[in-house]
Amino acid sequence: MKRRDFMSNTACFGVVVATTPLNSLAFSSNKLTPPAKGKIPVAFALSEGATVIDFAGPWEVFQDVHVSERGSTMDEQMPFQLYTVSEKTEPVTGSGGLKLVPDYTFDSAPQPKVIVVGAQRGSKALHAWLNKNVASTDLIMSVCTGAFQLGRAGLLSGKSATTHHDFFEQFAKAFPDVTVKRGLRFVDEERVSSAGGLTSGIDLALHVVERYFGREVAQKTATYMEYQSKGWIV
Amino acid sequence: MKRRDFMSNTACFGVVVATTPLNSLAFSSNKLTPPAKGKIPVAFALSEGATVIDFAGPWEVFQDVHVSERGSTMDEQMPFQLYTVSEKTEPVTGSGGLKLVPDYTFDSAPQPKVIVVGAQRGSKALHAWLNKNVASTDLIMSVCTGAFQLGRAGLLSGKSATTHHDFFEQFAKAFPDVTVKRGLRFVDEERVSSAGGLTSGIDLALHVVERYFGREVAQKTATYMEYQSKGWIV
Repeated sequence: MKRRDFMSNTACFGVVVATTPLNSLAFSSNKLTPPAKGKIPVAFALSEGATVIDFAGPWEVFQDVHVSERGSTMDEQMPFQLYTVSEKTEPVTGSGGLKLVPDYTFDSAPQPKVIVVGAQRGSKALHAWLNKNVASTDLIMSVCTGAFQLGRAGLLSGKSATTHHDFFEQFAKAFPDVTVKRGLRFVDEERVSSAGGLTSGIDLALHVVERYFGREVAQKTATYMEYQSKGWIV
Repeated sequence: MKRRDFMSNTACFGVVVATTPLNSLAFSSNKLTPPAKGKIPVAFALSEGATVIDFAGPWEVFQDVHVSERGSTMDEQMPFQLYTVSEKTEPVTGSGGLKLVPDYTFDSAPQPKVIVVGAQRGSKALHAWLNKNVASTDLIMSVCTGAFQLGRAGLLSGKSATTHHDFFEQFAKAFPDVTVKRGLRFVDEERVSSAGGLTSGIDLALHVVERYFGREVAQKTATYMEYQSKGWIV
């Protein structure tokens, strides 16, 4: 199934998305502890049909974080190290036809501390890799219908989650042991978190930045990005 | 100069970005006329250091537009055709290390009706290509410091423009014949428009959608994207 077909149920156009700020659900605001020195590796899972903003939004957030206290050089002050991971390193075609070259395969990828899973075709290899890494990561986060990949990997059982607003019903049917939260920018279940549709991944990524480095660093990142939503503030 | 160095002047962190909605400047709200049938080709210029959200934000906007009146099939209802253009079709490394494969060279690219120029290293070949195409496009839009590429191509002389908030002074010095507008999501000078930093490219792209297809279609696109900023509404 093409990603575009999967996402573009025209029913969505009748839905009004709540735009009230502070519309996120954090079951815990537990801080995450960054390493004293060195990078926090963030892996972005890619497969055919990867929706562009789903990975690009969090990508931009993590790359734009600066923590001046972490060192004297620009490199030291940028705590996140980003890379893409897929089944193969041959080019992947994202949504709208964007051609991307994955940095690593699931077998060759460095150990991540954060994994970002946007909407995409996915595969059993992706689910196996998520399962293999969930215990050693600080968190795995989905964006949009990337939540289906986390669900298929069995990572959401007994938890709450959200997804794109067109897919609440389908998600609830597919994963009856997951509590679907509607109208939120994201649901933070600590080690496994999920954002709503598309741009809400930016808010969840900013929330993850806050969990590592606090509100001020996250706000500076949002300001740098000229990002106007306050949906990341819990 | 690496793109990251260019954009990450730490001075930005002290700047408070105005978050008041309706903060855009349109010198004209002239409608753009889409073709009765077929696609509107949108070319995204890429070169080394291309800032990810600068192209990915508008990319997502244009790919998510649906106009049900344009036909019975999903393809007919999706009016924009997206592709990337660069000097060569070898992979380009975007910001944060994202590897992208351009679809076309400047010589081989189909004739675009819209060109998107985000922050990137740029080249004289890019400037020549912009100049060659400006008269035949509906518009060329910059995002973030992509405005410097439009300036170097001579497309902004005598006009107003904006750019990332860290670069107002540098831009004003580089282009004394351009009126720099501060604190806006974008400046619409019809055939040559410019967005502020990073995420404000989403707002300018939504505004372009409105120019082609009206407010309702643009709002449906924003709703589908779960985009909360109202900065695109003039």
